[in-house]
Amino acid sequence: MTTCGMDAAEFRKRGKEMVDYIADYLETIEQREVYPDVQPGYLRSLIPNEAPEEPDAYEDVVRDIERVIMPGVTHWHSPYFYAYFPTANSYPAMLADMLSGAIGCIGFSWAASPACTELETVMLDWLGKMLNLPDAFLAGTTGLGGGVIQGTASEATLVALLAARSRIVQKIQADSPEREELDIISRLVAYSSDQAHSSVERAGLIAGVRMKKIPTAVSKKFAVHGETFSAMLKEDKEAGLIPFYFCATLGTTPSCAFDCITELGPICKAENMWMHIDAAYAGSAFICPEFRPLLNGVEFADSFNFNPHKWLLVNFDCSAMWVKKRADIIGAFKMDPLYLKHDHQESGLVTDYRHWQIPLGRRFRSLKMWFVFRLYGLKGLQAYIRKHVELAKEFERRVREDQRFEISADVVLGLVCFRMKGSDEKNKTLLKRINAARKIHLVPCQLAGSFVLRFAVCARTTESRHVQEAWSHISEIASEILQELPN
Amino acid sequence: MTTCGMDAAEFRKRGKEMVDYIADYLETIEQREVYPDVQPGYLRSLIPNEAPEEPDAYEDVVRDIERVIMPGVTHWHSPYFYAYFPTANSYPAMLADMLSGAIGCIGFSWAASPACTELETVMLDWLGKMLNLPDAFLAGTTGLGGGVIQGTASEATLVALLAARSRIVQKIQADSPEREELDIISRLVAYSSDQAHSSVERAGLIAGVRMKKIPTAVSKKFAVHGETFSAMLKEDKEAGLIPFYFCATLGTTPSCAFDCITELGPICKAENMWMHIDAAYAGSAFICPEFRPLLNGVEFADSFNFNPHKWLLVNFDCSAMWVKKRADIIGAFKMDPLYLKHDHQESGLVTDYRHWQIPLGRRFRSLKMWFVFRLYGLKGLQAYIRKHVELAKEFERRVREDQRFEISADVVLGLVCFRMKGSDEKNKTLLKRINAARKIHLVPCQLAGSFVLRFAVCARTTESRHVQEAWSHISEIASEILQELPN
Repeated sequence: MTTCGMDAAEFRKRGKEMVDYIADYLETIEQREVYPDVQPGYLRSLIPNEAPEEPDAYEDVVRDIERVIMPGVTHWHSPYFYAYFPTANSYPAMLADMLSGAIGCIGFSWAASPACTELETVMLDWLGKMLNLPDAFLAGTTGLGGGVIQGTASEATLVALLAARSRIVQKIQADSPEREELDIISRLVAYSSDQAHSSVERAGLIAGVRMKKIPTAVSKKFAVHGETFSAMLKEDKEAGLIPFYFCATLGTTPSCAFDCITELGPICKAENMWMHIDAAYAGSAFICPEFRPLLNGVEFADSFNFNPHKWLLVNFDCSAMWVKKRADIIGAFKMDPLYLKHDHQESGLVTDYRHWQIPLGRRFRSLKMWFVFRLYGLKGLQAYIRKHVELAKEFERRVREDQRFEISADVVLGLVCFRMKGSDEKNKTLLKRINAARKIHLVPCQLAGSFVLRFAVCARTTESRHVQEAWSHISEIASEILQELPN
Repeated sequence: MTTCGMDAAEFRKRGKEMVDYIADYLETIEQREVYPDVQPGYLRSLIPNEAPEEPDAYEDVVRDIERVIMPGVTHWHSPYFYAYFPTANSYPAMLADMLSGAIGCIGFSWAASPACTELETVMLDWLGKMLNLPDAFLAGTTGLGGGVIQGTASEATLVALLAARSRIVQKIQADSPEREELDIISRLVAYSSDQAHSSVERAGLIAGVRMKKIPTAVSKKFAVHGETFSAMLKEDKEAGLIPFYFCATLGTTPSCAFDCITELGPICKAENMWMHIDAAYAGSAFICPEFRPLLNGVEFADSFNFNPHKWLLVNFDCSAMWVKKRADIIGAFKMDPLYLKHDHQESGLVTDYRHWQIPLGRRFRSLKMWFVFRLYGLKGLQAYIRKHVELAKEFERRVREDQRFEISADVVLGLVCFRMKGSDEKNKTLLKRINAARKIHLVPCQLAGSFVLRFAVCARTTESRHVQEAWSHISEIASEILQELPN
């Protein structure tokens, strides 16, 4: 009986060609325009309306990569890409991902592929040690805590929120068994910074709980401080609400600001609130001793998350999350149908990661961490972080040297928030022209009511010369604008 | 400035070696024991406690694949793997995934990489046409509906539930603006079959809504029928509850049963309830005209989902979901911070997929669909489905020919539910010995109170001879057991 498709011999040939295509693409990526010149709907007209009945030739498929796909790609790994935050891309991670695809196991339980679960637990311990996380977050062989790979920080925020919701409901019902779950939930209130990522507010929507934003200010470096937080808690408790969850941000998306968790952690402890820390971008930097103080206060957290898939060279998706008490997170989700039961599941050494996450299925993602950590080594990873921070500082120096510009927030890691002095209008024009020119790519943010440009060092291959080119380019466009709009 | 790691030249060499390793692994997979012989905690002692300071040699990393990883892998792509449901693995999908990793864009909005969004929309249209989905589910250039790739069916179920929750709250508040959201939510009730996947119940937990299970029976082929459903709705409405969501299953996990959606759909319409269809496994079969009648009634659904990553040769993750009204799903989630805004977003042609899903980030997964659909062609994919169904029928015939055994549920597609006549004890022993022997791998289910074995045709390379060997093996173990436990 035959099915078409491709056999192993053909894959050996095509796979090697693809390896070369990938190496070529990444070696010459800076010759491509970083931002695509296409209009919405461009792709549909380039390909048929339906799948073919009979197989297409492989050569035609490959030809279509350059004809159909590449013209519409925003090249996140171009050294001229400075938008959003970085997303990781490294050769060791790609090799591991190829292997992961071939093994193709679905690791929802220990038994579904023990290596998939066990390597993940150990890799999260390795990474936790690199960050010098408190022991309570490590699994080891006897720990109550441990780590898990989530798809994204959004999911980690949501999982932590759901665990917190479940914990508070159980706690209140233990004291007052007559209180109904939905009644309790209707009084809960969660908090985050007004600088927190939109996914935090979204987690509140999904979980059906109130989510309040704690105001920050430019004078306080866009960080949440204890005083403001305490005042809000007092007011909310007086109004009959039940504070139960605080999502602290270390390295906010707009400006890479750091909530003051050494002040906020003790407050959460005193109030029996769950403190989750979202360090999606900044977390990778904590592997360097000089940046580790930014994580001080993590000892007060119930859960902590950051994305190696952003800045630690592990390709998407790989969002690392640790909890102090596995039982808290598992308790929020546990379902055990017979088709997922297995002999070992009551053993203390066994982790069934399906209880730790929103989806059921999961890929063998820890292979990517294993390859990256071993093939870079801790020192290589630290050097990588330091290089990006240095490039950001270099850009910051250029901006500060130019009297027409101002820096809008402290530059702590790889992000520089800056603007032309004067109106938002001028800065909107600046950004529009930068992106229309397609030489570099940036996105804006709003800081203290002003329209601000974000310059995030993103690509693995960004070097000083790219930053210099980017600055010259921005500076030239600024000159043009100032001739047209002098104020 | 240098960081270590691996350069493009080294990747060319190592990538090609990895391609050969993958081809070797898959070509010889049946020589490996399908289920690993390891104890919980086996892996930790095989590797260091910490990441290395300096990079390891690549040769050492590769050597460790066989030393550390493979001994603990459950080989889902072995032709002796008959557990759970299939997970897809094909060479075209792996090639596309390599490309996706290299491009490494994060497609949360159209602008973040237009090709990533647009190819996805068109591929979901292609696939929708293969299934002969009603036009209302297709995006086209002017449609109100369309498709999206979710990570897993669990996420699709949850997204649909959240959209339904948001729609009913808005509807009720439109009539009675004074009613509070949490008060409305506390009266909502959602439904699914008692055979539905555990993730449906879990979605209810996450969303904080009541989820009721509709009883099924062996006499009704484990399907939900209209009569039972109507009776439950009547009762719940009389008790002051608000029915708002029904998750129908086409192809349940225990026995591949099909809810009677031609009866249930009109009821949902009449009650203004959201009908979501979860066809995670079975959906792939609907590309064959002879199986398409199983999908009749989909015209009543608001959303429909199945997993090409199960049975349609597109490697995990790729769960295809369609909605009739994009606005319903987007309305449940929309958040628009400045750093994610872009010029085109108000255009009708632009889709920002972040509003359709739980996570923010997303990989370029539609490349896998594109490669698979083109390199197999529709006929190749149909042949693949038919081959698996034929293999299941072959196994069913063997079971039926053996008087010691019985078939526990209709064999419709690639799953055979069977057991030895007599006690659960005997069947538990049978399964335990099968899995302990490690020649084949199965998991059980519970059907009408009995312990049942599931034989799911899973691997791409399963042939008739593997099924025959599997049956001989099961039959021999049964003989042993019957000598020991004759009743």
